[in-house]
Amino acid sequence: MHPLAERLSNQDERALAKAISLVENDAEDKLELLKDIHPMTGRAHYIGMTGSPGAGKSSLVNRLITYLRTLNLTVGVVAVDPTSPFSGGALLGDRVRMAEHFTDPGVFIRSMGTRGSLGGLSRTTKETVRLMDAFGFDVILIETVGVGQSELDIMKIADTIAVVLNPGSGDVVQVFKAGIMEIADLFIVNKADLPGVPKLLAELESMLDLVKHDAPWRPPIVKAISVQNLGLENVWKRMQEHIEYSKASGERDARRKTSLEREVIEVVHAEMMKKLVEREEAEEKGWVEEVTSGSIDPYSAAVKLLQDYVGGLERKGMGR
Amino acid sequence: MHPLAERLSNQDERALAKAISLVENDAEDKLELLKDIHPMTGRAHYIGMTGSPGAGKSSLVNRLITYLRTLNLTVGVVAVDPTSPFSGGALLGDRVRMAEHFTDPGVFIRSMGTRGSLGGLSRTTKETVRLMDAFGFDVILIETVGVGQSELDIMKIADTIAVVLNPGSGDVVQVFKAGIMEIADLFIVNKADLPGVPKLLAELESMLDLVKHDAPWRPPIVKAISVQNLGLENVWKRMQEHIEYSKASGERDARRKTSLEREVIEVVHAEMMKKLVEREEAEEKGWVEEVTSGSIDPYSAAVKLLQDYVGGLERKGMGR
Repeated sequence: MHPLAERLSNQDERALAKAISLVENDAEDKLELLKDIHPMTGRAHYIGMTGSPGAGKSSLVNRLITYLRTLNLTVGVVAVDPTSPFSGGALLGDRVRMAEHFTDPGVFIRSMGTRGSLGGLSRTTKETVRLMDAFGFDVILIETVGVGQSELDIMKIADTIAVVLNPGSGDVVQVFKAGIMEIADLFIVNKADLPGVPKLLAELESMLDLVKHDAPWRPPIVKAISVQNLGLENVWKRMQEHIEYSKASGERDARRKTSLEREVIEVVHAEMMKKLVEREEAEEKGWVEEVTSGSIDPYSAAVKLLQDYVGGLERKGMGR
Repeated sequence: MHPLAERLSNQDERALAKAISLVENDAEDKLELLKDIHPMTGRAHYIGMTGSPGAGKSSLVNRLITYLRTLNLTVGVVAVDPTSPFSGGALLGDRVRMAEHFTDPGVFIRSMGTRGSLGGLSRTTKETVRLMDAFGFDVILIETVGVGQSELDIMKIADTIAVVLNPGSGDVVQVFKAGIMEIADLFIVNKADLPGVPKLLAELESMLDLVKHDAPWRPPIVKAISVQNLGLENVWKRMQEHIEYSKASGERDARRKTSLEREVIEVVHAEMMKKLVEREEAEEKGWVEEVTSGSIDPYSAAVKLLQDYVGGLERKGMGR
């Protein structure tokens, strides 16, 4: 067993931090660690929270953590901040949040920024969620800014997906266009003391009529004013109702199965990519040079690489 | 040679439409077609145009087409519309635009909507660009709504990337956060008759100081009012300057090489995914069921699939 897996099972918080770094750095023993912690996962409830920047998601998440702690639930948080690598936003956000829950061992917060690599952020985020699950948190909150495909992709690991909106922001159209409407289980209208709430509610209801009119679960809409600590009890109540519904209906199981399937595909893809890079680096005139110099077209090169992958695998004797 | 490749080399417009459909449907003979047209590509100049929804991109593209036609340049357009599959936006947009250039054989417009599949839109878009290039258009315009990772990814095939902004929209911060600032070669301030132009220009310049202060090419900022047909000559002049710069500096070659490299990786990935699906479908109890029933963890399953891929390839005798 991977030593970090052992330490995670003993709820060693420093081991969790180390394990997340290992996943972020895509270390050699990552798959081994993930394999070993897999039997320890499946107990936590994953809650995704998304919404446009400025919707007050972070403050809402912060207050929700505090509320969940009063119920004696432990909470892991992964905050995905897909800003330009330039901004360093992830680190700053981390520190600001940490301040409030720093001394509480029942809370663990980690921010993820975009750090290179094809689809890297999405995979790292999901793997971090798995690690937190294995550690034993009751609830894992996954916070993203809901715009692009990769954020949508991250959200799909969640058992319950909450979309945070503001009155007067015109968010509904954006949410609809981004395809978030279809995956939402719950809407939270935050900053509900601002003008425009009735209009937003009406817009949401008519969008829901369109998208979810014959769905077995119609996402409820909850109002909150997170900075005044209002509405959080209701938010959690609705989330719990969704949890109960999804367990009873088999929806949760179905989603979890799809997530596992997707995870297999992502690992296959990532390992294949590593092979391609290794191969390019090992050869004097590699496939990149062959393609870019025009001595082979990209499609023939791809077919050849797929074929030659065979040899590489046999020589290395990879597998169980 | 693939019959469509032959017909494309004869500038058969119906063959182009057919070839694009073939690419969209991910047909069996797709790689063969792309391989055969590869030697016919490389002559066109690819221009990416991105910006937030409502920036007036479509109208600008439309007017630019008209302007380029007065210079006797032929134009292919791929308009990427990543709206929810629900909206049917792509088709509608297509028809509206087509109306203006319908009878002109020197213009070919195709819209791409999101239709399922992992990273599918990005790949289909790029392959469509290659087909248009092979057909012989002088300029290929690639229009996207610049928000997510997959749109950024699409943009990277372009030789010249123009970002369209509006005064008073607060777009600059979004563009910066989305990582578009770093890849822009040119900024177009459209709707330049609206208030807020000096503020937008100042914001842009200070962002450029930050991001591009020692870059060899500092992206120029051009004002336009596309609905009044103003500024298009200037837009094209700046685009041409960038083309000249990027040819002379080797930047264009470098980008094109990186694109080819990325294309190889995408093909390998896509073919691998197809194998996984085929395998799952061929077996009575496939890997999906094994993973979702819990009889194997996803990481061991991935390693096993990579290993077993060997056999599948050998049996089929894929490759050159």
